[in-house]
Amino acid sequence: MSTSWTAFGGDLHLDLTERRAAGAGLRAALEDALREAVQDGRLAPGTRLPSSRALGEDLGIARNTVVEAYGQLTAEGWLSSRQGSGTTVARRTVPSPAVRPSRPPTRRRSARHDLMSGRPDLSLFPRTAWLAAARRALATAPHEVLDYGSPLGRIELRQALTHYLARVRGVRTDPDHLLVCTGVTQGLGLVCAALRDRGARALAVEEYGLPPQHATVRAAGLTTVPVPLDADGARVDLLDARAGAVLLTPAHQYPTGAALSAERRAEAVRWAREQDRYVIEDDYDGEFRYDRQPLGAMQALDPERVVYAGTSAKSLAPGLRLAWLALPDALVEPVARLKSLADTMSPVLDQLTLAELITSGTYDRHVRRCRLHYRRRRDQLVAALAEHAPHVRVTGIAAGLHAVLQLPPGSAPEPELLARAERAGLALGGLGLHRATGPAPADAPPALVIGYATPPDHAFPAAVQALCALLRGT
Amino acid sequence: MSTSWTAFGGDLHLDLTERRAAGAGLRAALEDALREAVQDGRLAPGTRLPSSRALGEDLGIARNTVVEAYGQLTAEGWLSSRQGSGTTVARRTVPSPAVRPSRPPTRRRSARHDLMSGRPDLSLFPRTAWLAAARRALATAPHEVLDYGSPLGRIELRQALTHYLARVRGVRTDPDHLLVCTGVTQGLGLVCAALRDRGARALAVEEYGLPPQHATVRAAGLTTVPVPLDADGARVDLLDARAGAVLLTPAHQYPTGAALSAERRAEAVRWAREQDRYVIEDDYDGEFRYDRQPLGAMQALDPERVVYAGTSAKSLAPGLRLAWLALPDALVEPVARLKSLADTMSPVLDQLTLAELITSGTYDRHVRRCRLHYRRRRDQLVAALAEHAPHVRVTGIAAGLHAVLQLPPGSAPEPELLARAERAGLALGGLGLHRATGPAPADAPPALVIGYATPPDHAFPAAVQALCALLRGT
Repeated sequence: MSTSWTAFGGDLHLDLTERRAAGAGLRAALEDALREAVQDGRLAPGTRLPSSRALGEDLGIARNTVVEAYGQLTAEGWLSSRQGSGTTVARRTVPSPAVRPSRPPTRRRSARHDLMSGRPDLSLFPRTAWLAAARRALATAPHEVLDYGSPLGRIELRQALTHYLARVRGVRTDPDHLLVCTGVTQGLGLVCAALRDRGARALAVEEYGLPPQHATVRAAGLTTVPVPLDADGARVDLLDARAGAVLLTPAHQYPTGAALSAERRAEAVRWAREQDRYVIEDDYDGEFRYDRQPLGAMQALDPERVVYAGTSAKSLAPGLRLAWLALPDALVEPVARLKSLADTMSPVLDQLTLAELITSGTYDRHVRRCRLHYRRRRDQLVAALAEHAPHVRVTGIAAGLHAVLQLPPGSAPEPELLARAERAGLALGGLGLHRATGPAPADAPPALVIGYATPPDHAFPAAVQALCALLRGT
Repeated sequence: MSTSWTAFGGDLHLDLTERRAAGAGLRAALEDALREAVQDGRLAPGTRLPSSRALGEDLGIARNTVVEAYGQLTAEGWLSSRQGSGTTVARRTVPSPAVRPSRPPTRRRSARHDLMSGRPDLSLFPRTAWLAAARRALATAPHEVLDYGSPLGRIELRQALTHYLARVRGVRTDPDHLLVCTGVTQGLGLVCAALRDRGARALAVEEYGLPPQHATVRAAGLTTVPVPLDADGARVDLLDARAGAVLLTPAHQYPTGAALSAERRAEAVRWAREQDRYVIEDDYDGEFRYDRQPLGAMQALDPERVVYAGTSAKSLAPGLRLAWLALPDALVEPVARLKSLADTMSPVLDQLTLAELITSGTYDRHVRRCRLHYRRRRDQLVAALAEHAPHVRVTGIAAGLHAVLQLPPGSAPEPELLARAERAGLALGGLGLHRATGPAPADAPPALVIGYATPPDHAFPAAVQALCALLRGT
């Protein structure tokens, strides 16, 4: 004998059968079940209980049994009863024991000055425009958009991205070769798994990069082999023979900041063609270039050999988990099948919203606004360093959301610098932490990775000041 | 020499360097680049180009060169120029060749009457309430919600779910043991991968179930071994010794419709405890029970041995891809690590919106409304069958969004029935297609799986009528 109540503004599952089976009387079983529901938080303080008549009917027991149980629990202080307002759960001051305090979040933001790279200024997220676009998208969408659908993602977004990526990044693709994924991490994992299924054993990765990305590659069953870097980007002439593909950041090497030269691009594509291999182009911040020489996406050199990966993580927010792959024809089926096995398809509402943002032109305006914003940030950082820490060299091209600061030989070693930064309330990264092959040698000259986009506007000047103060002492 | 224009309402990447390198003159290179951008759709018809002065400045070339290039392209019909309104891309009637027509969607809805199971009535999705909740959630959320965060998912949703699941389904968990995933498919894959990492080799699955789910289990590295079913649900007394865990649908076996008896539940938990194994409880439609004897979630019997999986796919929409796992303590770390490797974390905006829907009580009201709706649908289906096809037996408990229709021995075989249905414009499933072990034996009595929730209200009576007409002839 049990019931789910829906009479008091919410559902409650209540089961007397077990208690009855254990020998409890009807009234005792009901009292016990209610007591437990209050105790463990399922019935929150102030909740209004169903009338004794309604509950009696629901449970198929005499109304009077319910009246007696309510009376007993009111006497015990679990419930309170007032003429005219029915029976409610008594208000207590102790929190529900069912909910233990939460563990601390994975990334704690205790630093006073946050210059960790990899994140945009989240205060720029266009909340109002996003909500307006969501409203417009949902107002016109047929019901079937809410259904299961293609593992490639919503056609509306793939169409919008086809035009957008062609226009802004020179990407040559179409909606049938685009796959929407929940972040580049997922996309990379899917592509690596597809390559593994084709017989690949290793992925070449840039000597400096994102160690968590490398972990995803290895979880997909490939080993990672490093490619050296220089001022022109990855030394693709030195690609490991074992590599079935190479992961590159051609527009703006992460984190060293080099742009892959036109010669290197051509060479990597030639390698892929001749060896039947692939290039994965992680275009994580390709929309943010502040000088006059943007190169389009490398994918345009050969859409059948280059997998293009783009994301909204830097242009909008990492929390959206909304990214896309432009795939060679031969990889569409295997990657779509793996996506389907992994999570059927990506969530649709954000896809429809982003499609609407792009086709309405709002996304372009937003990106342009961010570009001006970050460019100003970078100029301010560079100017402050030139004035207060002239011994520090800012390397890499004028692009993206981060800069690398090279300290002269003889400076304190990187781990010590990072420790000093932490003591000064400064969150920032060291180049050594980005090495694909583990910690840098002890005699490597220290370098810091500064995410100048991370703080909101009001906090940026103080963060730069704190950084300059730290560097003055090096 | 290249530029990205932002002067005409959008970005355009344009690169002259390569053309210049190939020996083209300045004006020819510019003409060629513009021609190609129009031709491949990057510059859409009607797009307004920057003024010759602005573009000249951007490219660092003489204004007159731009004027001449514009003039040539206007003469060729690529651009059009009118006094006072500047230069625009000419309007053409042919579609851009860059976008090939899209492939047909994976699930085509060509049937006139859609009674495929597994989907809710999508016209019930509370669009207005959803948008209002999204607005409220974004209005108060701090910027950091948009950042990378815990692989478990947003704390707001985990807190709301802790209370909700306890109240409605008797689930015993807390925010530290809940993980938000993009659908039960993803959650199941992650749990299977975690069990595989602990040494499991096989997962027991119900004899009838969801073959795509079984494919996900196998992709995660486990083999699937079937458990027989009877009217009390899975025969957990017959669990295969190789199984490291068993996947069950205790509230409402999918698709046969049995409820797992209390004895079987206790037995499965005992097995898991004694053998150090796990139960995975797929509570896909646990909120939809129309009779008076709901059992709570089986997870409450032993939260350290039962993984609870819940979803919004039936209560809201499959397209949301929003589901959750309540995990035993020992599995939190490994599953969260795998989630992090797979896609960092689930998208945040829908999580915040659902949390707001739940805590405001809107979700409860919506679920109740759906429950009444589907209950009425089921009653109508059962009544129509009793009248027009009394030889057909509706099996399974009064719950969920689908029913199984058993046809008497001697009826046409299932594949023939399905072919007839297709000819009659009826989309529905056969029980045999849900077998974990491949096609049913030829002499198995045919049974149809009817998703009575799928059509919108206006289409339901005609769909039931078409179904009755089909069954009259069996």
